[in-house]
Amino acid sequence: MFLKNTWYVACTPDEIEGKPLGRRICNEKMVLFRGPDGAVAALEDFCPHRGAPLSLGFMRDGQLVCGYHGLVMGAEGKCASMPGQRVGGFPSIRRYPAVERYGFIWVWPGDPALADPAKIHHLEWADNPEWAHGGGLYHIHCDYRLMIDNLMDLTHETYVHASSIGQAEIEEAPPQTKAEGESVVTSRFMENIMPPPFWAAALRGNGLADDVACDRWQICRFAPPSHVMIEVGVAHAGKGGYHAAPEHKASSIVVDFITPETETSIWYFWGMARNFKPEDTALTEKIREGQGKIFGEDLEMLEAQQRNLLAHPERNLLKLNIDAGGVQSRRILERLIAEERQAAAAVAAVAS
Amino acid sequence: MFLKNTWYVACTPDEIEGKPLGRRICNEKMVLFRGPDGAVAALEDFCPHRGAPLSLGFMRDGQLVCGYHGLVMGAEGKCASMPGQRVGGFPSIRRYPAVERYGFIWVWPGDPALADPAKIHHLEWADNPEWAHGGGLYHIHCDYRLMIDNLMDLTHETYVHASSIGQAEIEEAPPQTKAEGESVVTSRFMENIMPPPFWAAALRGNGLADDVACDRWQICRFAPPSHVMIEVGVAHAGKGGYHAAPEHKASSIVVDFITPETETSIWYFWGMARNFKPEDTALTEKIREGQGKIFGEDLEMLEAQQRNLLAHPERNLLKLNIDAGGVQSRRILERLIAEERQAAAAVAAVAS
Amino acid sequence: MFLKNTWYVACTPDEIEGKPLGRRICNEKMVLFRGPDGAVAALEDFCPHRGAPLSLGFMRDGQLVCGYHGLVMGAEGKCASMPGQRVGGFPSIRRYPAVERYGFIWVWPGDPALADPAKIHHLEWADNPEWAHGGGLYHIHCDYRLMIDNLMDLTHETYVHASSIGQAEIEEAPPQTKAEGESVVTSRFMENIMPPPFWAAALRGNGLADDVACDRWQICRFAPPSHVMIEVGVAHAGKGGYHAAPEHKASSIVVDFITPETETSIWYFWGMARNFKPEDTALTEKIREGQGKIFGEDLEMLEAQQRNLLAHPERNLLKLNIDAGGVQSRRILERLIAEERQAAAAVAAVAS
Repeated sequence: MFLKNTWYVACTPDEIEGKPLGRRICNEKMVLFRGPDGAVAALEDFCPHRGAPLSLGFMRDGQLVCGYHGLVMGAEGKCASMPGQRVGGFPSIRRYPAVERYGFIWVWPGDPALADPAKIHHLEWADNPEWAHGGGLYHIHCDYRLMIDNLMDLTHETYVHASSIGQAEIEEAPPQTKAEGESVVTSRFMENIMPPPFWAAALRGNGLADDVACDRWQICRFAPPSHVMIEVGVAHAGKGGYHAAPEHKASSIVVDFITPETETSIWYFWGMARNFKPEDTALTEKIREGQGKIFGEDLEMLEAQQRNLLAHPERNLLKLNIDAGGVQSRRILERLIAEERQAAAAVAAVAS
Repeated sequence: MFLKNTWYVACTPDEIEGKPLGRRICNEKMVLFRGPDGAVAALEDFCPHRGAPLSLGFMRDGQLVCGYHGLVMGAEGKCASMPGQRVGGFPSIRRYPAVERYGFIWVWPGDPALADPAKIHHLEWADNPEWAHGGGLYHIHCDYRLMIDNLMDLTHETYVHASSIGQAEIEEAPPQTKAEGESVVTSRFMENIMPPPFWAAALRGNGLADDVACDRWQICRFAPPSHVMIEVGVAHAGKGGYHAAPEHKASSIVVDFITPETETSIWYFWGMARNFKPEDTALTEKIREGQGKIFGEDLEMLEAQQRNLLAHPERNLLKLNIDAGGVQSRRILERLIAEERQAAAAVAAVAS
Repeated sequence: MFLKNTWYVACTPDEIEGKPLGRRICNEKMVLFRGPDGAVAALEDFCPHRGAPLSLGFMRDGQLVCGYHGLVMGAEGKCASMPGQRVGGFPSIRRYPAVERYGFIWVWPGDPALADPAKIHHLEWADNPEWAHGGGLYHIHCDYRLMIDNLMDLTHETYVHASSIGQAEIEEAPPQTKAEGESVVTSRFMENIMPPPFWAAALRGNGLADDVACDRWQICRFAPPSHVMIEVGVAHAGKGGYHAAPEHKASSIVVDFITPETETSIWYFWGMARNFKPEDTALTEKIREGQGKIFGEDLEMLEAQQRNLLAHPERNLLKLNIDAGGVQSRRILERLIAEERQAAAAVAAVAS
């Protein structure tokens, strides 16, 4: 159950540096690569000659060459050449619209006729030199919606991330959730609390005292199909909290792109964008390492939760106030998926 | 095919020392822990909030806390509290009767209304300071009845355990099998034989000569659902064999609790109880190590046998005289399982 | 989909040296061993007593003893004895015709009444002291026909084995394919080319210059059920090519026996036979090592191809001129398999 007529993050540029990459996205096995003009391309990962995965091949002069018998595949899915063969009648393979933007490669696993790059959400932090971004990729065996739930209810930080960003005060501040069109925003504000270890370090990194009371915020924004951007930060107490001037706070955006691989597995692109010291690559790397450890703590829990849900299909889960972010995000997804299916059925009815 | 209205060994106390334990028993995924009063508890391993396994949580002041969002679960399966929530209407999860006795935690995977701790078999050796017990736990991919067969026919010692307790004379002494109510006893007595390595060591450990002829015995006692206690020993020949005075023999009880995990896997609690030098913990550990190696030799054979049986469902096995112990044990189990199912069907008929 | 009334290579003599071997062939789980007279035997790998795999047992005085309870199995599948038992009424297990010839153990997984050792293909190189052979065994997760395709189209050498036997000129020389009865021959001749690394080394090994233009040949011969013998070699250019006198060339036969394990896995016996320096065992070992590395390069590709084909059952593959060897081999197999099934159906109809 995922949207197919939408843009997903497929990979990062380093993953297709000089070589093709095989990746399954929304159950579609794709090969991703950079074509002769440098533009990114995504094709079915299936050589029309003998069915070998094209991703086991290699790049030659900007062309994708099958590693089994040398068929040369064009970026549009049409065979360009093959040694000793006339390739005019070769069947094409499926092409998936692909775009490089904001430091990611995006693919559209659904109907190519509907693909419009303008539908990729604008990411201010990715386009602005005053911001820096670092992140990583995890492969997790869970339904992508379990990760949306996870990110739209940060109560879990107190338990799953107790030694870094968790603190008891999170639970004491009930979150507010509201839907805005196709987006959902869940906000939580904590006042006059001591910063937990991660944020104490961030304050120090910003040249601020870390042993004083602070205001802390978490503003989680879900947007379809499965992007969750979270504004997080702390400010010295009494300086305006979320709206405090830069010299009183440490803040950033947690960046989460959740790409379904199958119904029960995901490619999880996590990262952090910040608008302080953007040129400090050592700091970017240090934050990335710390975040990687923290986000790695979610894996075991999500995979165990997934196994438990598969074993108990009859159980209904609770939908508490803290779950409202995930619940409303799922509701929007259900509506959009239903619309997508109705539209596809209408097209099919006209065609037949 | 297992009895559910019965007591199985679920774990040992060290496994729930300060933390919950997740374990599947008779296909039921349970979390085992020690409640606020120190009493043991077993619940469905499923947090009613979002389905996370409670066994990934932790103990706080004798309460089980879910490691995902902090739901606090009571020992009866009713949610005790959750930060920022009213929990009165939360659905309960299933409770399994659990009892600590004889150094083990026992659970009743079936109907709680029928659970009666008095039905736990009395274990003399576990309650008496003149005895010592040491043992271990193996996870094996086989039907629990294959392990019953294994233990009720010790002919296999000659082959599987040739270097420790096996000897040719075992096969030359036909076993006697008789059913006694719900129990089955298979006995084998060997006279005037040289002790194999394990028993030679046991004689030396008891200060007895190990290079003289001995009488040897094996008395296997099956009791439902899947307990097999085996009296084993050797006495210097002509001193009365099984009935010889303690100063002429070395003997002990092999303790086997076989707990089905699924239809084709088990938790196998093995051990040895002895009534000599019970205070000698170094000896307990030495015996435990030796027994662990010997019992580990059965694993590969049982798992390979299981795979072979699954691949050949049409094959009937032979039921020789040496197999009578296993055959009669299975017959009792079949009868008890049929009775259990009839009773459940009768209850269901009355209810509808 | 494989022939069953035919001879397959089951193992090599070293694999049953003093011990039984368990191996699945055409979905039949067999135990292979050397009987009391030294003759090879193949039986169902299932002890009629309790279903243990006989291959976990051991040999005693040329008899196969079950490692669980000591049943002694005869080479014909009839129980020979068992300690303390009368075995006359024990059910037999299935016997598979087995023959040792040409340095391999061959089995016939189909109807024993049809098994005729004379149907084993003659292997000149295996019987002649002027030849030496060395080889190895790989277990690969692919349909055996994908390996036939692989070996009947050596175009892949240019890509899969680029650093050893591949070279661009292979693709420039179109192969010729012809069926001869139940055999298929695909030939490719290249003239006036520089020898690739493997063949340069072979020329040096033969005391010939390796930096001069050569003629090169590949003659692939398929024979049912799945044997592919490939004559390969190079000769100094202008000396007659394939027909050049021995002092001008380096040549050998690539030996491939492909034994289906299941529908999607194989036991692949690969090797090389040569008729120069046959007494030089160090050279045999050196060639074996080099060939092992080269042939290991096919594994990843074939297994990935197999997974891709299973994921795309609806896709038709291309059948180019270079694929003719595999295509015609499959056609012969299809015909023979259809004939085998018709014959079996006719026998069944008569019987009923």
